[in-house]
Amino acid sequence: MDAAEYRKRGKEMVDYIADYLEKVDTRQVFPDVEPGYLRPLIPDCAPQDPESFEDVIKDIENIIMPGVTHWNSPYFFAYFPVASSFPALLADMLCGGIGCVGFSWAASPACTELETVMLDWLGKMINLPKEFLAGKDGQGGGVIQGTASEATLVSLLAARTKTIRRLQSEKPELTKADIMDRLVAYASDQAHSSVEKAALIGGVKMKTVPSDDMFSVCGSALKNVLDDDKASGLIPFFFCATLGTTSCCSFDKLLELGPICNKENIWMHVDAAYAGSAFICPEFRHLLNGVEFADSFDFNPHKWLLVNFDCSAMWVKKRSDVTDAFKLEPLYLQHPHQDSGLITDYRHWQIPLGRRFRSLKLWFVMRMYGVTGLQKYIRKHVRLSHHFEHLVLQDERFEICADVVLGLVCFRLKGSNELNKELLKNINEAKKIHLVPCHLREKFVLRFAICARTVESTHVEFAWQHISQLATDLLKTWKQNHQQ
Amino acid sequence: MDAAEYRKRGKEMVDYIADYLEKVDTRQVFPDVEPGYLRPLIPDCAPQDPESFEDVIKDIENIIMPGVTHWNSPYFFAYFPVASSFPALLADMLCGGIGCVGFSWAASPACTELETVMLDWLGKMINLPKEFLAGKDGQGGGVIQGTASEATLVSLLAARTKTIRRLQSEKPELTKADIMDRLVAYASDQAHSSVEKAALIGGVKMKTVPSDDMFSVCGSALKNVLDDDKASGLIPFFFCATLGTTSCCSFDKLLELGPICNKENIWMHVDAAYAGSAFICPEFRHLLNGVEFADSFDFNPHKWLLVNFDCSAMWVKKRSDVTDAFKLEPLYLQHPHQDSGLITDYRHWQIPLGRRFRSLKLWFVMRMYGVTGLQKYIRKHVRLSHHFEHLVLQDERFEICADVVLGLVCFRLKGSNELNKELLKNINEAKKIHLVPCHLREKFVLRFAICARTVESTHVEFAWQHISQLATDLLKTWKQNHQQ
Repeated sequence: MDAAEYRKRGKEMVDYIADYLEKVDTRQVFPDVEPGYLRPLIPDCAPQDPESFEDVIKDIENIIMPGVTHWNSPYFFAYFPVASSFPALLADMLCGGIGCVGFSWAASPACTELETVMLDWLGKMINLPKEFLAGKDGQGGGVIQGTASEATLVSLLAARTKTIRRLQSEKPELTKADIMDRLVAYASDQAHSSVEKAALIGGVKMKTVPSDDMFSVCGSALKNVLDDDKASGLIPFFFCATLGTTSCCSFDKLLELGPICNKENIWMHVDAAYAGSAFICPEFRHLLNGVEFADSFDFNPHKWLLVNFDCSAMWVKKRSDVTDAFKLEPLYLQHPHQDSGLITDYRHWQIPLGRRFRSLKLWFVMRMYGVTGLQKYIRKHVRLSHHFEHLVLQDERFEICADVVLGLVCFRLKGSNELNKELLKNINEAKKIHLVPCHLREKFVLRFAICARTVESTHVEFAWQHISQLATDLLKTWKQNHQQ
Repeated sequence: MDAAEYRKRGKEMVDYIADYLEKVDTRQVFPDVEPGYLRPLIPDCAPQDPESFEDVIKDIENIIMPGVTHWNSPYFFAYFPVASSFPALLADMLCGGIGCVGFSWAASPACTELETVMLDWLGKMINLPKEFLAGKDGQGGGVIQGTASEATLVSLLAARTKTIRRLQSEKPELTKADIMDRLVAYASDQAHSSVEKAALIGGVKMKTVPSDDMFSVCGSALKNVLDDDKASGLIPFFFCATLGTTSCCSFDKLLELGPICNKENIWMHVDAAYAGSAFICPEFRHLLNGVEFADSFDFNPHKWLLVNFDCSAMWVKKRSDVTDAFKLEPLYLQHPHQDSGLITDYRHWQIPLGRRFRSLKLWFVMRMYGVTGLQKYIRKHVRLSHHFEHLVLQDERFEICADVVLGLVCFRLKGSNELNKELLKNINEAKKIHLVPCHLREKFVLRFAICARTVESTHVEFAWQHISQLATDLLKTWKQNHQQ
């Protein structure tokens, strides 16, 4: 394929994508396929000779689309949203076209510098304390990670290195192994599984801190666990606070937790993967209060800020804490400017070496929506979740299981877990909408997350009527079965 | 921006990218900017109100392009290539348009299944032993990682878990910390810094094995180190063999190393990040002999196989070795099919949770080039590197510093390291071409890597004439200075 054909096919692809996104509501949100569906549909090895673009593109509808879960459908209410917007799609095209790899400043200065400045823009939008911004001569700064999981891992590793060095400088007789064996990381019992995974990778213990009846970790809960563990000779070194948990979008109490962490030399990382985008609205910014005590903070514009995956925005107060954990300097990656205070080699801030020019997406989206456009978008989603909450509350058969703060509603039929599992099964098998469940304590709960860019109150109302009807049908047979 | 405007702007972007790639040879390959150039050129916060696409796009030429290192320029001979092709760009557009997140089978079945089958296609293209393929009921299989660094880390972590479990089952009195403290990972003294980084992250020791005068690790070198370390009570558990080192594209001797690793219960990971693409040509496949002894293998189609970054292809012989190291199952990620042997939840194969639909790029590229088209591409690059080698050899002032096997030529002026540093400085300051150096033992060496998709013998000849002229100029003043 030469440039001339790319011009033709690229324009066809733009139309295909526009058609797909404009009519995604007409596709079944969850596919009918069974595991193993795809292999029999395609050859078992690559063709020897080139095939035409027509051959390839017709297989998209025939082979790929029947197996796609349509995350951008307005009937998709599962997990959390994945962001998608036209400005971000355009920026990603450009990122691919330029195709630079930005592991160091010299590998493509614009790639590094735009990222630093965009993370400052974004940090200012959520009113992040100044220590987290790079500015012209700050010690902090931001970086785009692929996912919030990676941000959690990077911060845990930075904390591990920092703690080991501090303890060894205090007590030179301690070996690294002595210390590693006693390190403990903490997070809420509601925290994402990626915290446990980070501790597993980092080779340190991880313990959960019990959340309260609002599913939030408060200061006293952390303090109790810390006291016990210190008494047993363990070394608490890392706490991952969550703002907007995956299960029910609850918020740990940073204002209580932060001072404890600071006093105890515990690195506090704040994971606001989903909720963070909402902090651009002044009315939700209070949820971030206490971040001033944190060492690092992360949220995913690729969830709820209209920037296509992947774009997880992470800030640290002291960037040397992160780079100290990773810095290795082979000659083929050295360049004349690297010891200047002005430059940033992002490879020292992350797990991978290579990196794409992802800040273009942030730049396009922030400029083409403007702060007001992005705020409007967040507010619409929050309004829709309250609309759904209101519909649930009007039906006495149902209960709301957690405070509705942003775009997630946790609800269930009053009754057994088995009943609710059956309801969810019926909902997902009907495939008119798509939801996933969670556990809140002993309860099996349905999660209704406002997801798509194009979701409107009509979709929410349709979803509710559908759920309500399936509940009616279910309760009828359920009662009969239980009466027999 | 609505769909109608996206259709218009998307087509403009296609033309912009086509223009960029068609004329990238007219842009200066390395930018003139100094660190900190970008910040003063743009506002210090995001705009309140939306800006137009015209405003944004004009800043691409004004602000971004002056700071881009043009990796796709035919005058770019630095690092290793980053792949770019029109079919891959189209597939990446589609990936963004669909915008699904494929962390589990259910999150988008097509995303998972196409990846498994494409890794089988690719594995067959390089004649990888059958144990590495998923097939319908194999125990192995492939996964797309973001980078080779992540593949190295994932394999090191899998090896760590496997070794700890094995030793604890043999001697239940051993604690995890006892074992961790004695684990040692190994790689060549020529291996990429990402191996050291992986060991740092995994909290285990890492030692280098001396390479021979061809910069290859042979069996006896590994055996010597292992014997010493076992005698000191250490536990060797992981060896990363490199096929195609970053410095000089040398090859570790898998046929000697593999049996030693197998005998000693050492996980052998084979990192062929750059060289792996060449194994699609029968005449280079012998370089992969011995991979049958490996536990895992990785190479980067995003380097040399025309698939845009990121796409690092990793295979394991026993996928449970990898998933055992990571498997965590919160309810919100469970789905009905997950315990079927047929399905793959790729989140257990990688560090991040989320993942893009990257197998589309492999599918488009393999089909639209065909095996023969891809082979032709590899052979052209190898031919060009030998062409450059030949030009160097004809000039008595220069020497070739390592065997030219694939697309990399390591060369230098006969003389001091200072002289060669000066030559490289003059080359990179002239900015007509771009190179990076390496160290081979005590020697400072220039690396000439065939990189761009569009590079031809004219560019190579131009580069050589330019280097040769700069050498003439340098030697003149150098001799004068040294005579004074």
